[in-house]
Amino acid sequence: MLIIKIGGGSSLNTSAVLYDFTNLKGPKILIHGANARMAEISEKLGKPPVMLTSKSGHTSRRTDPETLDIFMMVYSGVTNKRIVEALQKRGVNAVGLTGIDGRIWEGRRKSTLKIRDGDKLKVIRDDYTGKVTKINTSLIELLVENGYVPVLTPPAISEEGEAINVDNDRAAAVLGGALKADAIVQLFEAPGFMKDIDNPDSLISHIPKDKIEDHYQFAGGRMKKKLMGAKEAIDAGVAKIYFGDGRVDEPIRRAMEGIGTIIS
Amino acid sequence: MLIIKIGGGSSLNTSAVLYDFTNLKGPKILIHGANARMAEISEKLGKPPVMLTSKSGHTSRRTDPETLDIFMMVYSGVTNKRIVEALQKRGVNAVGLTGIDGRIWEGRRKSTLKIRDGDKLKVIRDDYTGKVTKINTSLIELLVENGYVPVLTPPAISEEGEAINVDNDRAAAVLGGALKADAIVQLFEAPGFMKDIDNPDSLISHIPKDKIEDHYQFAGGRMKKKLMGAKEAIDAGVAKIYFGDGRVDEPIRRAMEGIGTIIS
Repeated sequence: MLIIKIGGGSSLNTSAVLYDFTNLKGPKILIHGANARMAEISEKLGKPPVMLTSKSGHTSRRTDPETLDIFMMVYSGVTNKRIVEALQKRGVNAVGLTGIDGRIWEGRRKSTLKIRDGDKLKVIRDDYTGKVTKINTSLIELLVENGYVPVLTPPAISEEGEAINVDNDRAAAVLGGALKADAIVQLFEAPGFMKDIDNPDSLISHIPKDKIEDHYQFAGGRMKKKLMGAKEAIDAGVAKIYFGDGRVDEPIRRAMEGIGTIIS
Repeated sequence: MLIIKIGGGSSLNTSAVLYDFTNLKGPKILIHGANARMAEISEKLGKPPVMLTSKSGHTSRRTDPETLDIFMMVYSGVTNKRIVEALQKRGVNAVGLTGIDGRIWEGRRKSTLKIRDGDKLKVIRDDYTGKVTKINTSLIELLVENGYVPVLTPPAISEEGEAINVDNDRAAAVLGGALKADAIVQLFEAPGFMKDIDNPDSLISHIPKDKIEDHYQFAGGRMKKKLMGAKEAIDAGVAKIYFGDGRVDEPIRRAMEGIGTIIS
């Protein structure tokens, strides 16, 4: 089983990813984001993204019910279905799903957020974000065993049955662990994992699996989450994680040939 | 197998439909529309609905690629996933799908439209509408046999693998026929089938299955399509079609008890 995760950045070469993905043999799952489109549609609908800073200094996207509606439109609506359409056109029997469908990605909702608003502390109660804590593998397994190719995107679902926005990289990692995937291929807008994000020569081509944590110091926000996800997946039994450039031609083939970063 | 179809009108009581739907025993499928929300979001995105009149006088919604993007956002994005969420919250293991996923609804795209534009005739080539001609039942059957509850909405997919907008009532009817459904329950914004749309006393409570065509003369645009769908489903082996009011409490129970129109 291979899991391919592609981000939602505007410079990603989605059609090259889908071309490579089509040619992969064996069971496979595609997980995707849609953040550039999310920003664009949110702006158009008069609901621009708002970032929150928690008491402890972490930033996250404000996800009130209206934002979650737009999130569903962009992630599970147009982005997911256009990918499924493109794969079907290439003969891949794709099925688009979110973590809500069949409760694939189940998590815990943070029902109250304590945030900084300038000098003040505020409590927010209508935010719908959380963390994937449980994978219900039965639907994915049923589909894969019967020759379907799942195309998966957030939101996830809370224990109480509410749609929640979750970190997609971590969700991919936890899914990979639960399915005992052979590998996860993470495609994003960089050549791989770099000690210095501004210096392409600082690319690290291999990270031994027992040394992942030593690299947290070099990683910024999103990249640190990808690295933490990689550690979680490796700990759960995934053999290899590939980090690769999603902006180039043949992005999956290149990543799996080691042009990027291999964690194993 | 029961198929429940609910329209997308603004006065429909979706939560009452979902409450009834949850309590239905046995295999079941929910099919939904989203047209009121589609109009609202299209307007907000600066892309208001455009109706076309064909050479022969039929009207249809102009579906260029951008309209189809918005259609996916509203139908398969927010509307489908909010319904799946509500059902999951009630303990129904729902899975939201479109006709693209697993090619459930396959159809023929009208690749050129000849339309009237004032006095002139015009040809439009980038329209994505069509007609469902084939049901690929395997995905739906796999899910239903394993205890999942499909929640289905357009678009469908063309033979060439393009997403296409299709008539939802007809798609529900063809699906019912292919699955040999016991019944289809059609819920909409009227008490049932009426000889005179403006006179509630003209409700027809029973239409014998060999007399459906005799009633076309009393039916306007949308209602005529529902009636034609009913005929197609009956011809394909569905035993009963219920037409019922989707604006009231207990809409499914009431329709199935005959408060509305039964076609059998």
